[in-house]
Amino acid sequence: MLRKIEHLGIAVTSISESLHLFEALLGTSCYKVEEVDSEHVKTAFLQIGESKIELLEATDPSSPIAKYLEKKGQGIHHIAFEVEDIEAEISRLKNEGFELIHQSAKDGADNKLIAFLHPRSTEGVLVELCQEKTL
Amino acid sequence: MLRKIEHLGIAVTSISESLHLFEALLGTSCYKVEEVDSEHVKTAFLQIGESKIELLEATDPSSPIAKYLEKKGQGIHHIAFEVEDIEAEISRLKNEGFELIHQSAKDGADNKLIAFLHPRSTEGVLVELCQEKTL
Repeated sequence: MLRKIEHLGIAVTSISESLHLFEALLGTSCYKVEEVDSEHVKTAFLQIGESKIELLEATDPSSPIAKYLEKKGQGIHHIAFEVEDIEAEISRLKNEGFELIHQSAKDGADNKLIAFLHPRSTEGVLVELCQEKTL
Repeated sequence: MLRKIEHLGIAVTSISESLHLFEALLGTSCYKVEEVDSEHVKTAFLQIGESKIELLEATDPSSPIAKYLEKKGQGIHHIAFEVEDIEAEISRLKNEGFELIHQSAKDGADNKLIAFLHPRSTEGVLVELCQEKTL
């Protein structure tokens, strides 16, 4: 079961150029900036209700975000849902016929285990599952 | 101030063809289907945490959703934030330099007053403000 929208990922050319705009829009300040080396992205998080906005900037031309920006420009990149047990959820969704990009969970930003579904199985929507890592 | 993600709008070719997929993904059932004649769209809502997923289907070739699907295909169309006082929020955002598509609130689906910001002032993200109508 998916519990809530954990975050919405927005691809931007430059976090330093766009962060103030999203802070002004939401009326709140960014609470964390974090680089995810494995994905070649820099992220910035803003809280809104029980969810977050995650700004995504490419740190390298090989980044999936660099490719996205080149093809589609800035905008909403993905939606992430919080799950309690990500491996159970991956199994459930495979059984429902969804196509997973990651066959098991991997480390993501913001202390999360993550897995992405392929947008061709979700009407063009890039969907991420994420589970908070326990310490 | 924006309070929470009220809903995420997803453009689909056919709600009847896509609804089961989103019900299976979220593990929940659609609780309302509604047509908005003024926008030439049919909508279907699914609850997820404090937010909703709104599927959007064009009911007419003149619909903004028909034009979106033709240009970009199926996928995430907009993000809507809940506000307490939409006219005050429109003024605040204009003063912050954001460009509003609607200069004052209009009727939307799901018993809401709504206004959209132009995506060219929000890094390509189509943003909706919405306020629950009082009876």
